[in-house]
Amino acid sequence: MKKSHILSRSPTISSTISPEGSLEVLSQHEVNRLHRTSQSGLHDLLRRCALAVLNCGNPTDDSVALLEAYKDFDIEVLQQDRGIRLKLTNAPAEAFVDGRMIRGIREHLSAVIRDIVYVYNEIQTHKRFDLETGEGTTNAVFHILRKAGALKPGRDPNLIVCWGGHSISREEYEYTKDVGYHLGLRDLDICTGCGPGAMKGPMKGANVAHAKQRRSDGRYLGISEPGIIAAEAPNPIVNELVVMPDIEKRLEAFIRVGHGIIVFPGGVGTAEEILYLLGILLHPDNTEMKLPVIFTGPSSSADYFNRIDEFLVYALGEKVRNYYKIIIGDPARVARSLREEVDSVMEYRRHHQDAFYFNWRLTIARDFQAPFEPTHQSMEALALHRNQPIHELAANLRRAFSGIVAGNVKEKGIRAIETYGPFRLTAESELMQQLDTLLSSFVQQGRMKLNDQEYIPCYVLQ
Amino acid sequence: MKKSHILSRSPTISSTISPEGSLEVLSQHEVNRLHRTSQSGLHDLLRRCALAVLNCGNPTDDSVALLEAYKDFDIEVLQQDRGIRLKLTNAPAEAFVDGRMIRGIREHLSAVIRDIVYVYNEIQTHKRFDLETGEGTTNAVFHILRKAGALKPGRDPNLIVCWGGHSISREEYEYTKDVGYHLGLRDLDICTGCGPGAMKGPMKGANVAHAKQRRSDGRYLGISEPGIIAAEAPNPIVNELVVMPDIEKRLEAFIRVGHGIIVFPGGVGTAEEILYLLGILLHPDNTEMKLPVIFTGPSSSADYFNRIDEFLVYALGEKVRNYYKIIIGDPARVARSLREEVDSVMEYRRHHQDAFYFNWRLTIARDFQAPFEPTHQSMEALALHRNQPIHELAANLRRAFSGIVAGNVKEKGIRAIETYGPFRLTAESELMQQLDTLLSSFVQQGRMKLNDQEYIPCYVLQ
Amino acid sequence: MKKSHILSRSPTISSTISPEGSLEVLSQHEVNRLHRTSQSGLHDLLRRCALAVLNCGNPTDDSVALLEAYKDFDIEVLQQDRGIRLKLTNAPAEAFVDGRMIRGIREHLSAVIRDIVYVYNEIQTHKRFDLETGEGTTNAVFHILRKAGALKPGRDPNLIVCWGGHSISREEYEYTKDVGYHLGLRDLDICTGCGPGAMKGPMKGANVAHAKQRRSDGRYLGISEPGIIAAEAPNPIVNELVVMPDIEKRLEAFIRVGHGIIVFPGGVGTAEEILYLLGILLHPDNTEMKLPVIFTGPSSSADYFNRIDEFLVYALGEKVRNYYKIIIGDPARVARSLREEVDSVMEYRRHHQDAFYFNWRLTIARDFQAPFEPTHQSMEALALHRNQPIHELAANLRRAFSGIVAGNVKEKGIRAIETYGPFRLTAESELMQQLDTLLSSFVQQGRMKLNDQEYIPCYVLQ
Amino acid sequence: MKKSHILSRSPTISSTISPEGSLEVLSQHEVNRLHRTSQSGLHDLLRRCALAVLNCGNPTDDSVALLEAYKDFDIEVLQQDRGIRLKLTNAPAEAFVDGRMIRGIREHLSAVIRDIVYVYNEIQTHKRFDLETGEGTTNAVFHILRKAGALKPGRDPNLIVCWGGHSISREEYEYTKDVGYHLGLRDLDICTGCGPGAMKGPMKGANVAHAKQRRSDGRYLGISEPGIIAAEAPNPIVNELVVMPDIEKRLEAFIRVGHGIIVFPGGVGTAEEILYLLGILLHPDNTEMKLPVIFTGPSSSADYFNRIDEFLVYALGEKVRNYYKIIIGDPARVARSLREEVDSVMEYRRHHQDAFYFNWRLTIARDFQAPFEPTHQSMEALALHRNQPIHELAANLRRAFSGIVAGNVKEKGIRAIETYGPFRLTAESELMQQLDTLLSSFVQQGRMKLNDQEYIPCYVLQ
Repeated sequence: MKKSHILSRSPTISSTISPEGSLEVLSQHEVNRLHRTSQSGLHDLLRRCALAVLNCGNPTDDSVALLEAYKDFDIEVLQQDRGIRLKLTNAPAEAFVDGRMIRGIREHLSAVIRDIVYVYNEIQTHKRFDLETGEGTTNAVFHILRKAGALKPGRDPNLIVCWGGHSISREEYEYTKDVGYHLGLRDLDICTGCGPGAMKGPMKGANVAHAKQRRSDGRYLGISEPGIIAAEAPNPIVNELVVMPDIEKRLEAFIRVGHGIIVFPGGVGTAEEILYLLGILLHPDNTEMKLPVIFTGPSSSADYFNRIDEFLVYALGEKVRNYYKIIIGDPARVARSLREEVDSVMEYRRHHQDAFYFNWRLTIARDFQAPFEPTHQSMEALALHRNQPIHELAANLRRAFSGIVAGNVKEKGIRAIETYGPFRLTAESELMQQLDTLLSSFVQQGRMKLNDQEYIPCYVLQ
Repeated sequence: MKKSHILSRSPTISSTISPEGSLEVLSQHEVNRLHRTSQSGLHDLLRRCALAVLNCGNPTDDSVALLEAYKDFDIEVLQQDRGIRLKLTNAPAEAFVDGRMIRGIREHLSAVIRDIVYVYNEIQTHKRFDLETGEGTTNAVFHILRKAGALKPGRDPNLIVCWGGHSISREEYEYTKDVGYHLGLRDLDICTGCGPGAMKGPMKGANVAHAKQRRSDGRYLGISEPGIIAAEAPNPIVNELVVMPDIEKRLEAFIRVGHGIIVFPGGVGTAEEILYLLGILLHPDNTEMKLPVIFTGPSSSADYFNRIDEFLVYALGEKVRNYYKIIIGDPARVARSLREEVDSVMEYRRHHQDAFYFNWRLTIARDFQAPFEPTHQSMEALALHRNQPIHELAANLRRAFSGIVAGNVKEKGIRAIETYGPFRLTAESELMQQLDTLLSSFVQQGRMKLNDQEYIPCYVLQ
Repeated sequence: MKKSHILSRSPTISSTISPEGSLEVLSQHEVNRLHRTSQSGLHDLLRRCALAVLNCGNPTDDSVALLEAYKDFDIEVLQQDRGIRLKLTNAPAEAFVDGRMIRGIREHLSAVIRDIVYVYNEIQTHKRFDLETGEGTTNAVFHILRKAGALKPGRDPNLIVCWGGHSISREEYEYTKDVGYHLGLRDLDICTGCGPGAMKGPMKGANVAHAKQRRSDGRYLGISEPGIIAAEAPNPIVNELVVMPDIEKRLEAFIRVGHGIIVFPGGVGTAEEILYLLGILLHPDNTEMKLPVIFTGPSSSADYFNRIDEFLVYALGEKVRNYYKIIIGDPARVARSLREEVDSVMEYRRHHQDAFYFNWRLTIARDFQAPFEPTHQSMEALALHRNQPIHELAANLRRAFSGIVAGNVKEKGIRAIETYGPFRLTAESELMQQLDTLLSSFVQQGRMKLNDQEYIPCYVLQ
Repeated sequence: MKKSHILSRSPTISSTISPEGSLEVLSQHEVNRLHRTSQSGLHDLLRRCALAVLNCGNPTDDSVALLEAYKDFDIEVLQQDRGIRLKLTNAPAEAFVDGRMIRGIREHLSAVIRDIVYVYNEIQTHKRFDLETGEGTTNAVFHILRKAGALKPGRDPNLIVCWGGHSISREEYEYTKDVGYHLGLRDLDICTGCGPGAMKGPMKGANVAHAKQRRSDGRYLGISEPGIIAAEAPNPIVNELVVMPDIEKRLEAFIRVGHGIIVFPGGVGTAEEILYLLGILLHPDNTEMKLPVIFTGPSSSADYFNRIDEFLVYALGEKVRNYYKIIIGDPARVARSLREEVDSVMEYRRHHQDAFYFNWRLTIARDFQAPFEPTHQSMEALALHRNQPIHELAANLRRAFSGIVAGNVKEKGIRAIETYGPFRLTAESELMQQLDTLLSSFVQQGRMKLNDQEYIPCYVLQ
């Protein structure tokens, strides 16, 4: 089992700061609620997320260790003359420069508070959305994004969502920067899940390109959620941060705000995201939908996408290739291609009089909105055969990958494996072989390894 | 009884326009709700308020006549590519210049939609505020203002609320402009109830002064409510418009956002506002509160305030004079005085670490939040004697004035008077005399007259 | 002879202020030069113009009296930490609000310094333009305007030059405001010669309209010159001020930057401007030129333009009517017409690839650039007959009017008349009659009167 | 002798573009002048500089080769509707993204035109500055910078000039980025000479830091001159570009606009700059002057500064160390130190009421303004002994280094060495030894090498 490391604690600073950016004025009720630690659990959540944001210089997969290292850290919201003030006790010093907090981090803190308050008020307290329905769930996603100011009615479509691993090779990282650079030169904006690796590279590249193009209103939109914000703290370049309440709403947010999607190399988590995306695009209601998808990486990473491509074609049929394009080792072509496709997304939306800022028209089956809880039982029960509509198979494959990610890295999954042995996946025999080939290739490429240990699979195919 | 005039209808224009300013993106639910006329009543409300805003060049007291004149007017909200579009059918042509809607009016339309949607969602549908309590009511006022962007955390206190009659003499109107001019020269912003007369003059004056001072972010905040927006349509200079759901919340909004209050001459309605304001300031909890109040008008209007002053001193005691200052015929002194007092409001708020943008600390008794329904019975029952705390007497006097306003101009009140004769007010005998003197002075000054008819009192004092 | 009045002096203030707006940083040389009063005469000029700008609340025709009233006024330019500071001694208090100078006036002061320094450096010291040639003169006009930032390459044509009298009736003044309002609603900007009357009204009207249209970058361009700035001090609404070195360059500046011209009623000075304008438009080189001209006033002023129209048609032929349009009592039509014509000016410039911000293509004969010195001799020598090209006749008629203006109001002209009797004008007999009729109509309309005295003509027609 | 390489030519694009940024409108004269190639030589200069700017992706030391490679490149300035248009023929394609020129490069092109026109008009044509005097020269520097908008009166001192080599090691380059990052975090802006290496790194680092601090108005000021712009083309991040007419004025511009100076490792050219700077700071008039100077590099480069430090102390005395600080391997300390020192520069300037944007008070002896022409004769004649005021010795040492740079890399110098053998420098014997030690250390550190050849000294010490 993966042990919590002892995280070395940096020096700390205590200070009272003004929030920045999109934090709206709060009512006395809202301020009071954030105070009272014990009852609502809200203060704990705030403290945890705030610490993650402040610790941006030193991200860690291990949020328990982080909280342990800064157990005397606290944040308090005060109502004051010109609005709100945030009182920080023992905050990581790296968020500050000569005692003054970096402004980007102040904005992130404000965003964290804004979203936590909003979700608490609207979803938990007032239950204004029926989260049991697809419509209610989508509506909740919409309202959280709107509150965060992430839906901008005045802009033409130009937001590229970038997915991929957060611990990739140097070469892959440089490639993601280069792609970001070429996107930025073409006035495209970047949305990622925050954190390092493929989530940071495109933003850094686009930032340089936007400077060269004098694009002062470039967007670097990070969409996170409380469970991963510690591991994937937003780089301060992120100039819009939204904290969605859970992973499924976060994924839905990505594909409803993005006008194009790039997948960089990653591990099995990235494969899961690919199946999520294709499962949705393959839904019969979405036949006409325009959402350009490009898989890309440096030449040395070609194999990763080749294996995925082979597997997808086998499992979901040749037709699946209509939904993505693979471009290897050519950042300018990736960017040029997306620029063109995003322009046709604009035409499509205009023709259907759809909003540019939120893709209402996309159908997302409940399967993809409801969380999947990977247990030995649920994993074994997955229907992994081709005798079902392909978007349903895609949904089940996504669940399988999701379980493997959990068995690899999530505390609960790891414990279950320790206790009951590997997950057992039952699949059609040829599909099983293909799956095995794919997963083995990830192992060979070193994409399943954690730290430097030998990888012991958390699953058996039977 | 006052008859609905036949209002001459101007030429109309049908057009589809983009909203402007603070209208946030709407969800499909919200758009749909605004469509379906029949069920929710929301569409009717929207249509009525929209028409009032579009009819700004030609305000009328008579909203029934307005709706009659433009009975084929309609407004529809469409969800489209870059957001929302508003489809107008047979809108008054004066809102347009050569077929293009004046941008200020587009902003007002957007504000109307924003507030109607918000109140409907939060107050009517989700019932998120307990309007039976003072705290819940204040919270509702806060949230509506916040949604409208009217609470601006970055600004120093500088918002002057101006009250007074909407049908005043030319000389009085010019005086209100002049006061606005001197306020504007001192970087003070203006908040009024929209409409003509004392609500328009200060904004026009301040607009010129702000141009001279190159103050490009001057605020002209109009706070209206659906019942009066037709009679007091916002002048397009108003660059922030909020539509509160009812008169009591509108009054509360004024005194919680304002940093100083000017009362210009008006009629019995203005007297009612004065009693509202003093009733609150006299509340024992508000002893230390800083909220500068100035009564002012040109020399020729001195008598109006002298009579009010005499009456207030008699009814509420000499001490009431601590809460206002009377300045006659000296706009520069009014402005200079407020500039200084507003600066000490800032000191006070800073010292108590209160927000600048919303006066949480002010206590408003339930009496002043709950609507008073003037009937023969409720009017006769009013306790008009000095054997009660003065802030309660102030509340009762306000109610008496409110009933007289209703008997003078509101449809329901006029009908009641026609049927049952004048309201009977029972007061302590000397108080009754003073009240009679005051009301008679209004009649003599022509401040009770509607149109050009002789005024027949709607009350008897007994 | 007109006597210098004794001007009542307002209270004064001494203060050191920062310049605002377009005043560029000055070199030490430039600062030093502005210090040394005695040698260069530059300091005197600065002092005179600065006083005129500061005295904006109380304009006077009599700059001698103004200087006398504030003879202890002084201005000094200091080089300081963040740039330049202006030290004022005994400045008129009305330029200040509670001890702080109105920002618009600070900008005007800065503009005055900028232009005086530039003209001194470039024209007087470095003689970089050959003012003996048309080309050199136009180049000087261009460079002064460019330095002042008045040539804005990014804007579509929309600048309307308004001419007319500075002492007009209340009704005429209100009409100019109304025209300005309708221009402003159509996103047109205003350029005038500064000062009261027809120069102020259109700006005030446009300012209100721009507020309604949320046009925050509206231009109110004032073009003055040192000889008249005292009499026609810029209203603080003027947000761009240029001080041209003399009257001829000022007139050239108007017609090279304007995209349309409105002439409001005025006196003989306005007639002179009309002849200046038509003399240029009638030049054979300008046949194709687009420069819309509208004469307009309220119904009560119709006669003024009728008489001018009759005279023009008689003197210059029916064809002259191609160059102007007369619109009486219809501000909206004036604005609508100019909006359309200015759009076709844009087409024309685009088609010829001309700059939008400066009309290089317009030919201005030397006659109109070189100053005319009215003496008894030069007046008598004027060729006032129709046996010459009409643009030359127009030039001579302009000179005749110019001389009459001088004889009416300028010190030198008045003295000459006192000494030698009225100017003698020799004209073709019928032309003389027409001229007499026109000038008499001005007298009858009260447009020649100064103060309240009976007008005694300063000319005889023979 | 160094041969002109054959430069590989990239694909080209012909296009007509609009200028961007600070290019003011040009008069017809100015446009015409830029057209007529043959006469003025101005067009050639423009063509050469424009090509350098467009070739930014691929800088080369060899401007002859560059011009050869793009001999069909041309640029033409056209006067058009909204101002000026630039017609480019066969421009390097890398300046464009999908056919549209990168906006930063468009701005640089505009800056190049602006400065060439200004220098031609004011200095060459109108000879408005007496360049034979120190005062006139400084005035010219001031006016060119002012015209370029590089003197910003509203800003607090914060401009850090970074000097150092343009072909440094990867490690040194990363270090310069890191220093730039820490400067940027502290709201310091960057000024360099344009080009790669130590001139680019600090800007890239500061750009990232400014993004994190949301500093949207960060300045990246590049000061170049026509002779080196080809070799040191401005990176498009440079958002203000000034082209000074020659090297001496460029150096003077650096030290008059900078509020602090960092020297990174370089070669003998950097040593020359150090001597230039110290020669000025050691001038008796500058005793009290505040201008913080830091020499810094990564640990591996410590030796470079140690050797320079030793030499300086030997040659100019221990006191010289008062004028600089050496910080090795600590970017944060460099930035923190400068932040503090720049704040005391502000205090100093404020105390003396000096401008923030231009250091008028600094005395620069004529020695440092007048160009030094290195020939065998002038090199041999240099007084290299300590029997003279140290600022004069510094001036002579600077000349010696300047000659060595010329002998190493400049065409004229290389030819002279080929013909007459190495320069002979005569120095005091111990000084000669010290000089030899220093220069040898440069050779050993590989800082004299061009390409990969063995370095053969172009001088002998005798």
